[in-house]
Amino acid sequence: MTSPGAAPILGRSGGAFLTFDAIETPAVLVDLDVVLRNVAAMAERARRRGVRLRPHAKTHKIVEIGRMQLAAGASGLSVAKATEAEVFAAAGFDDLFVAYPVVGEDKGRRLLALADRVRLAAGVDSPDGARTLDAVFRASGCRLDVMLKVDVGFHRVGVSPDRAVEVAQSIADLSGLRLRGVFTHAGHAYLADSPEGVTRVGLSEGSSLVETAQRVRDAGLEIEEVSVGSTPTAAHAMTVKGVTECRPGNYVYHDASQVSLGTCALEDCALTVLATVVSVPAPDRAVVDAGSKTLSSDPLRPRGAGFGFVVGRRSRVARLSEEHGVIEVAAGEGFRVGERVRILPNHACVVSNLHDRVLAIRAGVVEGELAVAARGCVR
Amino acid sequence: MTSPGAAPILGRSGGAFLTFDAIETPAVLVDLDVVLRNVAAMAERARRRGVRLRPHAKTHKIVEIGRMQLAAGASGLSVAKATEAEVFAAAGFDDLFVAYPVVGEDKGRRLLALADRVRLAAGVDSPDGARTLDAVFRASGCRLDVMLKVDVGFHRVGVSPDRAVEVAQSIADLSGLRLRGVFTHAGHAYLADSPEGVTRVGLSEGSSLVETAQRVRDAGLEIEEVSVGSTPTAAHAMTVKGVTECRPGNYVYHDASQVSLGTCALEDCALTVLATVVSVPAPDRAVVDAGSKTLSSDPLRPRGAGFGFVVGRRSRVARLSEEHGVIEVAAGEGFRVGERVRILPNHACVVSNLHDRVLAIRAGVVEGELAVAARGCVR
Repeated sequence: MTSPGAAPILGRSGGAFLTFDAIETPAVLVDLDVVLRNVAAMAERARRRGVRLRPHAKTHKIVEIGRMQLAAGASGLSVAKATEAEVFAAAGFDDLFVAYPVVGEDKGRRLLALADRVRLAAGVDSPDGARTLDAVFRASGCRLDVMLKVDVGFHRVGVSPDRAVEVAQSIADLSGLRLRGVFTHAGHAYLADSPEGVTRVGLSEGSSLVETAQRVRDAGLEIEEVSVGSTPTAAHAMTVKGVTECRPGNYVYHDASQVSLGTCALEDCALTVLATVVSVPAPDRAVVDAGSKTLSSDPLRPRGAGFGFVVGRRSRVARLSEEHGVIEVAAGEGFRVGERVRILPNHACVVSNLHDRVLAIRAGVVEGELAVAARGCVR
Repeated sequence: MTSPGAAPILGRSGGAFLTFDAIETPAVLVDLDVVLRNVAAMAERARRRGVRLRPHAKTHKIVEIGRMQLAAGASGLSVAKATEAEVFAAAGFDDLFVAYPVVGEDKGRRLLALADRVRLAAGVDSPDGARTLDAVFRASGCRLDVMLKVDVGFHRVGVSPDRAVEVAQSIADLSGLRLRGVFTHAGHAYLADSPEGVTRVGLSEGSSLVETAQRVRDAGLEIEEVSVGSTPTAAHAMTVKGVTECRPGNYVYHDASQVSLGTCALEDCALTVLATVVSVPAPDRAVVDAGSKTLSSDPLRPRGAGFGFVVGRRSRVARLSEEHGVIEVAAGEGFRVGERVRILPNHACVVSNLHDRVLAIRAGVVEGELAVAARGCVR
């Protein structure tokens, strides 16, 4: 029985009508109406700007949600690891970009095995790393598209813009690889101290990458794709002329960090954790059955302040153990043992990686379970 | 082919001889020699003190390692959740304690289903929570042993010692439950500023719990088990007269936090993560393919300082993204793309929960894979 007000999105009949009180906790709830709204909004934004949208599937790791993104106009998906590419390829996705510096012949062999049925690209950021992939593809007489990662200020991986031409040239010399383009991820947007700071990072991400692409082109190499990343910067980076592709991931769910950064409102958050209060040892402390095994211990961005918002309350999850979320009870609020609460986690992507299944809800009703098919794909 | 120097522990023949360079990364390595040594040392310590040892299986979540603990003399296992109890019960373990305030009739039904073949106990810390279990067991005409959680200073869950008699009495009134004893977990030992601080917490944990047990007995209730927890405090708490049981978990693997706390030496650490350097974007920065999806973002205890030691180096993992471990390269050290490194994580238990399988190694050789059978058991 489904809710009278909402047609099933998952195309499944017979979804159980389950009130939240009947769900065993902890459980991850994904509101499909919010997902669809987020998916449509980002697709529309990319369409308006004339850039391709290649959402990062790491946030949901769910085949059905990847299909919703394609149905809304995404050109393909981004993934982080070769084994994630395998999961989505097995489900029929035929355009995948491993947006990570892929290193190693073992990884190259995984990609080669997909190359006959998937338009594939892999990230690279060093000649040494690129040669490990080249070795595999060259030996098989195939060619792998690669994208050069450029560091535009996050200082994690990627070549600095001033070394991009040199590294691009040494990659272009490898006959088993084809340089498709350049890409970046402005992760430092998550540390911005204001929404204006996020905007600045996004605009600078786009312009740095476009300039870098131009320098590589000036050196005589073709650059077909100029691809920017990250949910907070997406709206801004895609306004820069010359950007051709955008790879936000988190927008599909959003989370407490996006709310804190000003990227979205609370009602744009699709993923929450349903938990039960298991202990109220003191008036200012309540403990739920969702700890770091359920919520992860990722900090709130841009500044750490607990481990999750309690939906509809001012109280926050102040600390975590593996199975305990310790709520600091705000003045005037109270919790009782056995009560259900919904927690908005700091970081939705890592929550997905902790659970084999999530419950898809719609209009407050459980419509079905979704398998987190690419959970745990670390290789 | 196994190493000539080491007979297989897993009882498997044909284990592949695999050098570390041939292992696809990231991979979790568990050194069985170190595990066996840790298991034997804690068992001997408990035997010498005359206390039962009921190791917490949350650290490994592996059936084979639980069996090693029983073989060394453990009386049973502790687990954190009802679904973990189900996994170990299905593997034949017949004495399990769910060391967590178990709340809810759904959880009660899970436990009831095991009660015919497992000597079972569940943690409780409130009359309201206890009544949810009582309802299920009373209705079936069965009785569930429960242990009252006492807060001896960690201030997470548990009744304060001055309320223990009152709560114990209200639980003893429930005909579906039988109060087996009292238990604690001195998690505040992980915040101690010195090994002497850890010792003080351990001694205080034991004496507070023994005194609390005595007060409950003085009120006319039987207390059969007086059970202390935690790896750092185990050696100290079990010296207190009146303690009957000890439930350390982490000692089976240890980790960077235990080394930092002074609980063990580096060579007592059994679990490491094998990773590949995928990027060396700057002389002071190297990035490995193990991020928070592999190492978790749990902080180093007692004081946060990065996200893992690089074994054999002075360099540390300074920050994490989901798939990136960013190493701050120590002066005089260098890393190259493609190089394998071993990382000692901050917290071994949470690493176990992130992986379906670990590689069992012995004398530097991979002896086989072990399934992390109770991974992801959050309910």
